[in-house]
Amino acid sequence: MTKKKKYQPLDAMDYPRFEGIRTFMRLPHIEVLDDADFAIIGAPFDTGGTFRVGARFGPAGIRDNSLLLRPYNPAQQIGIFDYCSGIDYGDIPVVPGYIQESHKKIEVGAKAIFDSRTIPIFMGGDHSVSLPILRAIKQKFGPVALIHFDAHCDLWHGYFNKKDTHGTPFRRALEENLIDSARSSQIGLRGPLYDEGDHQMPTEAGLMAITGPELHRMGIDKAIRKIKARVGRGPAYLTFDIDFVDPAYAPGTGTPEAGGFTGYDSISLVRGLTDIDFIGYDMVEVMPAYDPANVTCLLAANIIYEFISLIALQKRGNSN
Amino acid sequence: MTKKKKYQPLDAMDYPRFEGIRTFMRLPHIEVLDDADFAIIGAPFDTGGTFRVGARFGPAGIRDNSLLLRPYNPAQQIGIFDYCSGIDYGDIPVVPGYIQESHKKIEVGAKAIFDSRTIPIFMGGDHSVSLPILRAIKQKFGPVALIHFDAHCDLWHGYFNKKDTHGTPFRRALEENLIDSARSSQIGLRGPLYDEGDHQMPTEAGLMAITGPELHRMGIDKAIRKIKARVGRGPAYLTFDIDFVDPAYAPGTGTPEAGGFTGYDSISLVRGLTDIDFIGYDMVEVMPAYDPANVTCLLAANIIYEFISLIALQKRGNSN
Amino acid sequence: MTKKKKYQPLDAMDYPRFEGIRTFMRLPHIEVLDDADFAIIGAPFDTGGTFRVGARFGPAGIRDNSLLLRPYNPAQQIGIFDYCSGIDYGDIPVVPGYIQESHKKIEVGAKAIFDSRTIPIFMGGDHSVSLPILRAIKQKFGPVALIHFDAHCDLWHGYFNKKDTHGTPFRRALEENLIDSARSSQIGLRGPLYDEGDHQMPTEAGLMAITGPELHRMGIDKAIRKIKARVGRGPAYLTFDIDFVDPAYAPGTGTPEAGGFTGYDSISLVRGLTDIDFIGYDMVEVMPAYDPANVTCLLAANIIYEFISLIALQKRGNSN
Amino acid sequence: MTKKKKYQPLDAMDYPRFEGIRTFMRLPHIEVLDDADFAIIGAPFDTGGTFRVGARFGPAGIRDNSLLLRPYNPAQQIGIFDYCSGIDYGDIPVVPGYIQESHKKIEVGAKAIFDSRTIPIFMGGDHSVSLPILRAIKQKFGPVALIHFDAHCDLWHGYFNKKDTHGTPFRRALEENLIDSARSSQIGLRGPLYDEGDHQMPTEAGLMAITGPELHRMGIDKAIRKIKARVGRGPAYLTFDIDFVDPAYAPGTGTPEAGGFTGYDSISLVRGLTDIDFIGYDMVEVMPAYDPANVTCLLAANIIYEFISLIALQKRGNSN
Amino acid sequence: MTKKKKYQPLDAMDYPRFEGIRTFMRLPHIEVLDDADFAIIGAPFDTGGTFRVGARFGPAGIRDNSLLLRPYNPAQQIGIFDYCSGIDYGDIPVVPGYIQESHKKIEVGAKAIFDSRTIPIFMGGDHSVSLPILRAIKQKFGPVALIHFDAHCDLWHGYFNKKDTHGTPFRRALEENLIDSARSSQIGLRGPLYDEGDHQMPTEAGLMAITGPELHRMGIDKAIRKIKARVGRGPAYLTFDIDFVDPAYAPGTGTPEAGGFTGYDSISLVRGLTDIDFIGYDMVEVMPAYDPANVTCLLAANIIYEFISLIALQKRGNSN
Amino acid sequence: MTKKKKYQPLDAMDYPRFEGIRTFMRLPHIEVLDDADFAIIGAPFDTGGTFRVGARFGPAGIRDNSLLLRPYNPAQQIGIFDYCSGIDYGDIPVVPGYIQESHKKIEVGAKAIFDSRTIPIFMGGDHSVSLPILRAIKQKFGPVALIHFDAHCDLWHGYFNKKDTHGTPFRRALEENLIDSARSSQIGLRGPLYDEGDHQMPTEAGLMAITGPELHRMGIDKAIRKIKARVGRGPAYLTFDIDFVDPAYAPGTGTPEAGGFTGYDSISLVRGLTDIDFIGYDMVEVMPAYDPANVTCLLAANIIYEFISLIALQKRGNSN
Repeated sequence: MTKKKKYQPLDAMDYPRFEGIRTFMRLPHIEVLDDADFAIIGAPFDTGGTFRVGARFGPAGIRDNSLLLRPYNPAQQIGIFDYCSGIDYGDIPVVPGYIQESHKKIEVGAKAIFDSRTIPIFMGGDHSVSLPILRAIKQKFGPVALIHFDAHCDLWHGYFNKKDTHGTPFRRALEENLIDSARSSQIGLRGPLYDEGDHQMPTEAGLMAITGPELHRMGIDKAIRKIKARVGRGPAYLTFDIDFVDPAYAPGTGTPEAGGFTGYDSISLVRGLTDIDFIGYDMVEVMPAYDPANVTCLLAANIIYEFISLIALQKRGNSN
Repeated sequence: MTKKKKYQPLDAMDYPRFEGIRTFMRLPHIEVLDDADFAIIGAPFDTGGTFRVGARFGPAGIRDNSLLLRPYNPAQQIGIFDYCSGIDYGDIPVVPGYIQESHKKIEVGAKAIFDSRTIPIFMGGDHSVSLPILRAIKQKFGPVALIHFDAHCDLWHGYFNKKDTHGTPFRRALEENLIDSARSSQIGLRGPLYDEGDHQMPTEAGLMAITGPELHRMGIDKAIRKIKARVGRGPAYLTFDIDFVDPAYAPGTGTPEAGGFTGYDSISLVRGLTDIDFIGYDMVEVMPAYDPANVTCLLAANIIYEFISLIALQKRGNSN
Repeated sequence: MTKKKKYQPLDAMDYPRFEGIRTFMRLPHIEVLDDADFAIIGAPFDTGGTFRVGARFGPAGIRDNSLLLRPYNPAQQIGIFDYCSGIDYGDIPVVPGYIQESHKKIEVGAKAIFDSRTIPIFMGGDHSVSLPILRAIKQKFGPVALIHFDAHCDLWHGYFNKKDTHGTPFRRALEENLIDSARSSQIGLRGPLYDEGDHQMPTEAGLMAITGPELHRMGIDKAIRKIKARVGRGPAYLTFDIDFVDPAYAPGTGTPEAGGFTGYDSISLVRGLTDIDFIGYDMVEVMPAYDPANVTCLLAANIIYEFISLIALQKRGNSN
Repeated sequence: MTKKKKYQPLDAMDYPRFEGIRTFMRLPHIEVLDDADFAIIGAPFDTGGTFRVGARFGPAGIRDNSLLLRPYNPAQQIGIFDYCSGIDYGDIPVVPGYIQESHKKIEVGAKAIFDSRTIPIFMGGDHSVSLPILRAIKQKFGPVALIHFDAHCDLWHGYFNKKDTHGTPFRRALEENLIDSARSSQIGLRGPLYDEGDHQMPTEAGLMAITGPELHRMGIDKAIRKIKARVGRGPAYLTFDIDFVDPAYAPGTGTPEAGGFTGYDSISLVRGLTDIDFIGYDMVEVMPAYDPANVTCLLAANIIYEFISLIALQKRGNSN
Repeated sequence: MTKKKKYQPLDAMDYPRFEGIRTFMRLPHIEVLDDADFAIIGAPFDTGGTFRVGARFGPAGIRDNSLLLRPYNPAQQIGIFDYCSGIDYGDIPVVPGYIQESHKKIEVGAKAIFDSRTIPIFMGGDHSVSLPILRAIKQKFGPVALIHFDAHCDLWHGYFNKKDTHGTPFRRALEENLIDSARSSQIGLRGPLYDEGDHQMPTEAGLMAITGPELHRMGIDKAIRKIKARVGRGPAYLTFDIDFVDPAYAPGTGTPEAGGFTGYDSISLVRGLTDIDFIGYDMVEVMPAYDPANVTCLLAANIIYEFISLIALQKRGNSN
Repeated sequence: MTKKKKYQPLDAMDYPRFEGIRTFMRLPHIEVLDDADFAIIGAPFDTGGTFRVGARFGPAGIRDNSLLLRPYNPAQQIGIFDYCSGIDYGDIPVVPGYIQESHKKIEVGAKAIFDSRTIPIFMGGDHSVSLPILRAIKQKFGPVALIHFDAHCDLWHGYFNKKDTHGTPFRRALEENLIDSARSSQIGLRGPLYDEGDHQMPTEAGLMAITGPELHRMGIDKAIRKIKARVGRGPAYLTFDIDFVDPAYAPGTGTPEAGGFTGYDSISLVRGLTDIDFIGYDMVEVMPAYDPANVTCLLAANIIYEFISLIALQKRGNSN
């Protein structure tokens, strides 16, 4: 086993888990990236929401429900902080009510991280925050493979005659050539649509789509193989809209869709995505005000934990 | 694609989904049936409840959570309003506290709809409301095939020495020859019973029973085949007690039973019931006061959406 | 007693109060103003919110909790619909996420009503919606006397370097000469501020301020006299931010401030504002997602009921 | 100090308050009245409710929130169980959904208690349960003085053309000569009414009415004096509808009315009603499903505790 | 069918289920064991909790949600009270805040039951309560086979340098030779751990471990076979930590872990454990304060119902 | 105006209030006291609770609801950070479940602060945490004047034969001569007691008691004068149990008592306590799990804000 890394969570044997300032997993809150292999970063912008709002409280809700996460992931058989150092970077300042300004601030904030050696895990905010992140990625990595878990494809051309909402980020991303469609996939799409064209949007855009009903039928293992085959070599970005999950497991979100997936499905899918060159992750559309039993925030924290575990596996792989 | 029908939901691109008066799916609230292929109708009567009460607020709760429903159903590959016109007819006035009077009013209200060409979808109320609906059906169609999703068979002879409660409607319906038992089925029955006889009541009454444990073992696809084989040709009525669903997915109901089914199971079952001559549907026992995360109401709205989709498929089939 | 007016609520003796489509007080939902003395109108825009968001669901929440309102106000000794006809006009379409566009739409929507003989009662939305309403008023009435109940003066010059938020509408209104300061007052101001200058903003702007502590000390009756003396003759507009009320009575709001007023205080204050030439009213910052016991929405509905009663009194006075 | 009485609560120093079967105040659950000076009795019937329902869970909710009540009342300077023995008699069986049958059962159950020497404290249920209780009282005591705390007078002639609901019990009681109007009063009446006549119903019926606004103005002490002067000598019955209290203090009720009274007001009013010959009490319209913070049930339990204290004072007075 | 046994639930046809004092399943609350085949007993001690607390209210929450349980279990085809008599024994007094004293009291209380012929079903409390129960078992039966459902192995050596917490009971039990490891199993273990050693603790302790992911893959039926093969002949004790279940089904617990099992999984597992010589059961870590939709308490009550059914099957088997 | 002090909250014009790591008022989280005039410190120990538990989450709940606090207090006319520098010191590590060890750790932690020039504001935790704080005070200041707001006197000799619970700290403190009784007072005592002796305990202990009913009658201003006259010159410590406040304003606490005080009463009382030589403060018994509308945490944060304001006034006074 390697030596423990610089930044790691408070020790729960000394400080009970309910104690201390609420950073993600009680990691140090540090705004310098030098010694961090990964950084948790809030992007609490939710002005893009077209139905329920309140994802601006998503990062706080996830942090509050990350306290039980411990450093060893038995499913992946890895001690995270044997291979990684991690921090909670805090939140990128946004301008609530102002999409362009906020997206610009998120892009600038994200770019600073991508310019470092730290792998970022963003917590939205609504799904519109993925757009400025992809813009920042483009500048460093070029078009990236997108692995996108969501009930909705978020490829609408516009909403209310407006180009920027939480339903349009990947349309914009495609237009701006931020995504390498040929290596990208959307998983979990389901629920009523406006018209037949909506249903075909992902494939027309060159993305691989695994709809909700298809995923229910094919099972998690096959889906993992298809996604991995699709993404191949090269940089990839994972974006996880919590409404991929069924409302029973994740009621606290902006546009819940019945007929979704379990927590175990979600965790298993992410766990399977090893050996991919992820350069970043996000978790979006978590709304604590609609989460009376905290299950949404708890699951989101656990999925982020699996992102971190993938980073640790990658580091271990690199160090071998 | 055919021309859009007369009555359809507000356009979400003009009116954001959180706006407007809360009708089901933001359909027009019209009390004339002339141009409506289907009508959503509340029957908010809950005096039949023997444990929790409050299903009188079911229609309002379902309407509130129907706002995200869009017109194209990708799983059925149909644009609903290309084939159908639909309205929210409002609620049938009842007399809370008075079962006989309320049942009579529901029967009269239901009969007016069955006498038209409009297919009704009723929202309870407790399960006792199905009885006057079946009485209205009898007058037009004779005994009808019943497809009944429920944790409970609702065939009790009486409760507290009373013949009318939410646990007895189908006993009364059998006695009054409202149901064509030979074509009918009950699906999802589970949970503790009073005695061994209760367990045998459905089959003794000539109904096909698929218990909860049986359904868990046989799976959704086989159940669909069995139900369809059973119903054959002729008019059928679907009644869906939300407690068919597991309490994790539908806590907001009067007599929740552990060990139930997922939202996806429920939706898939209904989706499979194509090519049946449904003359009406109901969704009962939804109680918003016990639904803090709104998942029950949301799922109920989505199941009703599948009812509407079956109507649209039927219309498309007829028009071919 | 005069003859009943054209538009009035459903009769609760025929239709139990829990029945029917949820308009305010179960008034008819009509989009034509011809025969309406007053109209309830939603302006569900909440992109101006700087802390909690979700006031877009305010109108729906208030409508849901207006069902118990009956037509005779014993405190004012008036049968509302003996003197008034009223409708629920529905909601003005807005563009969530886009302040300028939405404000323009609200201004246009409001102007249409002010151009009629109907007195509007707007339901926000966040407090930024008062700005376009005041712009519409200006066009018909010129600068108006403002009676403003709120924990906050909402006179900030900007927030995050932006001029339009829910904290700035009355600063903009003053700049645009929409308010007749000499006849206007702000009541209930309290809670921590940024600096000493904030405390002096209302009076420096020429408004009469009755702070929360002052109101606690002077009592409701004296405050009514001061407000009425201030407003004198001429058109007046009443804007009521629900955070005027104490969080125990109104937790469901965006920026709750401890140390506020009771429901009875609030109702009594409004009841006392007779003999003022009100040309409109609004009720803003109601957020159902933060209102688990519904007390906020219920109180907001009751305060709106008092607005309606003032309109009826005015009509009766005019008809004498 | 006298010797401790036979039946009293579990000792909290031995059994922590969160332990044990949930009877009221953890009194013994005994169905024999012989040695009980007072008995707590549930009458969980709620079919009379015209808006929200669920008061059938009122007794359970109140019992759950009575655990903190201790035996010495410092405000009345009395150790209850020095003078009284008390039990939790359990609930009178009712027939949910059937008003006549249930009222008959409540009447029979209540009569058995009035025929004993035990003073009953009933927990509703909706307010219709007071009618059969008054019928039982009549048989033993003749017409009784009624002290009635409520936002509503409950004197309607009918609802939906039905004579028995929770809005009509005292009209029926007057018709059946169960109430000695000349000694009776209604306190706290407020909120919108159907018409002017409603406002005058109490006084037309010969009752003394202290409306909500009047009580706010006159204060608690004066109201106590007026009620006591009115009731004079002779048997009296106190009925307390929890909607007397403001919704901030008691959201968990069927027809909440804004502008009500505080918990301290309510407790003080009851505390003041010493030296009255109370032969029974009830607390009605408590609905736990609408009481997310338990404040309604807690307050109801405390008001019942004041009823018990009045009984103890009466016993002490008699023993002097 | 045999004659009905002495102690059984209230008859729901006479006393509606929402009525009566809240014992488990409305069984008689009796503190004498003579005629009881099984006894439900609360052990509401929660000072061992290291994260969330409040399991002291677990027994009350479970009792409240046991009201719908009826006497015939169709899945096991047995009428429980044809073979069993059962009581609600109440709660063992504990000393909140004091672990040693409370454990001693629980041990003494448990021993009294094990010394009788009554099979106990304990309701925690946190998982630390299983330790004194196992100590009591040891005195009568020697080391017992443990069947332990849980997300966590609870084998930590200590927490905060303390030996007694809810994370350590089975380490202590092993040290004290209370458990027959060779016949014992732990099922459902999952979630992040402190280090690799934690993962190996169960097997190093000689227990059979079926982790959560393993159980997801092997399925319920195979797991039942493995557990039964392991336990073989001889006395066995079943301990069920509700966090075995997924947070969507059981949010109301102290240390919820994502990726768990459904209610149906849980019930099916217990149902399968026939033909084992169970001498007792417990259900721990239920926290009503975190269970807004009551689904946790409801499921816990249903799992306890399956424990009772196993007892009835055992009695029937013995009587054959 | 003086120069801004070193440590102050994040600027809400740059970082919206919903952003950032949740420290109290978004002050810097620093564990060095050198430049801090005041420090917010959590003491999240709740093993002393005898009824509801969960005050260990009090500090997190209060921090979450402190975000709206701004630096200028208009009621006291002071800009806090013109005179003060403040930090959030984090939480003192405790040992949940172990009273003696935890009290020792709190005493040591508190002593370190009292040894500095920083004035501490502690957030409990249950009320037992005040005892080790008073022990730390004694070492530096000798017996201190106690100003104690609470519904309960917390002077019990023991609970369950144990000397340390949240009901006994001030008995222990008196025994250990930690309190200068002649200068101390208890305010707000109310609710049922065990016996007459309980009622006399405060005065028998030499403390001044203002009971709840007395405070209701005398009013806030008079109470302030009495407390100030009592405390005179010399060091004083203020302890505020949130159950002083009425349950409508503060449901989220361990032993709520009806008939309490409003938020405004509470704030006004604290505001009036100027010119006292406070050497520290605490706010205890806040339980977020019982606070669904967040009003308890919000009020607690505002009362702490008034503590800070008193510190600032003191600093300004000293600097003049």
